[in-house]
Amino acid sequence: MTQSGLGGGPHLLRLMNCAAVLQAIRDAGTARLTDVVQATGLSRPTVTAAVSTLIGDGWVEETEAPESDLPRMGRPARVVRFRADARHVLGIDVGPHKVYCAVADLNGNVVTHIRRDVDEPGSYAALLEHVDSTMDLVLDEAGVDRSSLAAVGIGTPGIVDEYRGAVVQAPSVPGWDSLELSRALQDGIPCPVHVENDVNLAVVAERWNGRWGDADDLVLVQWGYRVGAAVLMQGRLHRGAHGAAGEIGFIDLEEEPQGVQAEGLGPLEATAGTSWIFRRARELGDHTSRDAVTVLSAAARGDPLATRVVDEAAARFARGLAPFLAAIDPELVVIGGGITLAGETMLSAVRSQLARRALVVPRLELSSLGDDAVALGAVRLALDHAERRLLDAYSAPDAKM
Amino acid sequence: MTQSGLGGGPHLLRLMNCAAVLQAIRDAGTARLTDVVQATGLSRPTVTAAVSTLIGDGWVEETEAPESDLPRMGRPARVVRFRADARHVLGIDVGPHKVYCAVADLNGNVVTHIRRDVDEPGSYAALLEHVDSTMDLVLDEAGVDRSSLAAVGIGTPGIVDEYRGAVVQAPSVPGWDSLELSRALQDGIPCPVHVENDVNLAVVAERWNGRWGDADDLVLVQWGYRVGAAVLMQGRLHRGAHGAAGEIGFIDLEEEPQGVQAEGLGPLEATAGTSWIFRRARELGDHTSRDAVTVLSAAARGDPLATRVVDEAAARFARGLAPFLAAIDPELVVIGGGITLAGETMLSAVRSQLARRALVVPRLELSSLGDDAVALGAVRLALDHAERRLLDAYSAPDAKM
Repeated sequence: MTQSGLGGGPHLLRLMNCAAVLQAIRDAGTARLTDVVQATGLSRPTVTAAVSTLIGDGWVEETEAPESDLPRMGRPARVVRFRADARHVLGIDVGPHKVYCAVADLNGNVVTHIRRDVDEPGSYAALLEHVDSTMDLVLDEAGVDRSSLAAVGIGTPGIVDEYRGAVVQAPSVPGWDSLELSRALQDGIPCPVHVENDVNLAVVAERWNGRWGDADDLVLVQWGYRVGAAVLMQGRLHRGAHGAAGEIGFIDLEEEPQGVQAEGLGPLEATAGTSWIFRRARELGDHTSRDAVTVLSAAARGDPLATRVVDEAAARFARGLAPFLAAIDPELVVIGGGITLAGETMLSAVRSQLARRALVVPRLELSSLGDDAVALGAVRLALDHAERRLLDAYSAPDAKM
Repeated sequence: MTQSGLGGGPHLLRLMNCAAVLQAIRDAGTARLTDVVQATGLSRPTVTAAVSTLIGDGWVEETEAPESDLPRMGRPARVVRFRADARHVLGIDVGPHKVYCAVADLNGNVVTHIRRDVDEPGSYAALLEHVDSTMDLVLDEAGVDRSSLAAVGIGTPGIVDEYRGAVVQAPSVPGWDSLELSRALQDGIPCPVHVENDVNLAVVAERWNGRWGDADDLVLVQWGYRVGAAVLMQGRLHRGAHGAAGEIGFIDLEEEPQGVQAEGLGPLEATAGTSWIFRRARELGDHTSRDAVTVLSAAARGDPLATRVVDEAAARFARGLAPFLAAIDPELVVIGGGITLAGETMLSAVRSQLARRALVVPRLELSSLGDDAVALGAVRLALDHAERRLLDAYSAPDAKM
């Protein structure tokens, strides 16, 4: 084997061998060299050389062989491990009321996360500053330098052009629409920043989470202050022709269209979101609850007034959800967001309301990811890109991670 | 080359060669043996032997070489042609008010078609009899014997279990739901009968038609007495988890659910279908129109009263279509069915109503297939199955077409 870097051919071949070996070790987590030879079909000298390169570059390290009951003959086998902490990724969930940052290693294990409530920001610039300072905080706490980030994923409300990394429409934050979010954050970050709609990321997290088995046609509805949905078809994110698939919150049902409401809420959000729920509870005489959280928790405990409010909200919600489901006919609908505080009370109310309206009622379930969903999806998004680039760096001559 | 049928191996190989040669001739329509050798990568003796088999089985025939300007040396090249009329397929569109049968050759050219209006059938049995007699008529006119049918495709309203060939839900014809349609028709037909939802077949025809180029995410709405939609995602039919994707006619928008209406119409059908349009025109003082057809044609000509009725219907229709589109965000919506008689008057009314309600308004177009859409889609469905079986008959040892 020619090891000299003189010819482009052998050099490229050597890199591609590195990529194959890295992939095999990555998939196995920990592997004996013999396993890597078997998995890649490469010769042992080629694998040995590739492993040396990968150790030099910091992606792989030698480790202890796992204890074995078998008597050992000769030298112990060489065992290598993928260094999941060689780089990190950052997943960000940004909205008008919160910034949530999670740092994860290359295996997707979240090392540190910080969630901050933010006051309604007056401008996109104020919100960007919140993102920036929270990023600093979480990286500091994780002991991860910005320079060692492999990729950043960020979820935002609104319609996103994922190729440009830009927010195209986002009625909830002034100036946030038409924002080149990826470019705006890119300044202090030496790795690519990938932007995606927040609910799309939540459905990615639901699938990553693995709790729903092999449900391929899956709709996630995030139902909180805002109401949005994301659609997985045959296991893949369905963004729609204009990135607007799943915008259930803006469904406008009345004979006379309602249009965008106060605080930039869509008609369905304004009529069934948590702000309506809190208002309605007060209207019905609940003077003790401080916010929708208290009302929803009371409903989960079976409080009659709170349950009535949740029933009413479920009726309004199902009125918008039913035509949405008529288009797709999914196998499973997962409901996430603040509303899940009302638990089974809410779920059974939605189920019986759908039964009154829909030709077919799909399986309905509660998300178990709660407030973490979007940030976890952002971590998964960043990981997908980081993994592709990591392998590309070894397959393409001029790529560098 | 072993030509004996003694060994299973060489026999199977010979059949597979036949399949490859048949595919190549089918794709080309007319081909010189040299072209077939090139397309298949098989040797000339193998191709010659396969062609003999295919001629013997009736799928291929020798034909005149096309005229050439080049001076000819030696014997003329052997030219063979796929015999598109070796078998035929039957496409059927059946609904409570009509039976439409089309006979097509294996190239999909419709040889004969018959459309019959039928009176509201009292039972599924009466409708099945209409189908049967129309089949007899059209085959008779085409001079095609039932025994020479390669496949039958049939489109029906309702939710279809395409594996069982059964209608699962169909509120419009008494007894038609829970009908094993494929089995019911199978008796007099010596080839498989494939059942599909009628609007699903119409969208298949729209795509086959080729007029919409490479639009992969496409919704077809059939808007007539009934209102239904079918969804193509990435060029493939999206049936939904329960076969109920696209059931827009049953969208139930009001605060108090309306449920199924008179004549088994869904809420949206009852409120925006052609029966409503005719009723509304009379209500507004139109005493000359005999039916919705007259009203819609008048709207196309700019008649003020008819235009007002179409505007009102468009507002009602858009109210149901908008939430439907919010789920999918398609590139293109094609509107077909009886409503297309109102042409651009209807299209621009729908467009401006959607602009008031939808976050994103997709491209809207009129279907040009009219009343033929479902039968054409049924022909395409039958062809797909016939082609697969034709090739299978030569690739699998025990299959026979």
